[in-house]
Amino acid sequence: MSFFDYFKTKKQNTASIAKERLQIIVAHERTTRNQPDYLPQLQQELLDVIRKYVSIREEDIQVQLDKNGNCSVLELNVTLPE
Amino acid sequence: MSFFDYFKTKKQNTASIAKERLQIIVAHERTTRNQPDYLPQLQQELLDVIRKYVSIREEDIQVQLDKNGNCSVLELNVTLPE
Repeated sequence: MSFFDYFKTKKQNTASIAKERLQIIVAHERTTRNQPDYLPQLQQELLDVIRKYVSIREEDIQVQLDKNGNCSVLELNVTLPE
Repeated sequence: MSFFDYFKTKKQNTASIAKERLQIIVAHERTTRNQPDYLPQLQQELLDVIRKYVSIREEDIQVQLDKNGNCSVLELNVTLPE
């Protein structure tokens, strides 16, 4: 399943929720495990970029950072104000 | 299937390719279809932020922008230099 298929599925599942939402996912797959992880630092900078286009309230941001071996995934879920 | 499950699956599938990779996905789900789409403008700014942490060559960036109804998805796939 490609990413696009995933998002299409997701969209249909949540079509009844009439909220404007933004989801940002950064996945970093490294060749070795001992490199520094810059995803936590990226998080604030990515939000700052997006804030140039839409206003985002701190309380509407959900952040999840997951590490699994040499793969780190940063997921930001934002509900935009109506 | 959650995003994390997806990435775990993907990781196993591609474990034999020893390349450092970065994937950035921005999905914007809007309540109405006629709002301006800022994802194309976001693209360059997101790459500029990531370039603070790693060097990225233009030729190693693959960009895909998909629209499906009121859902826009920007996908950036970057192969990092070894």
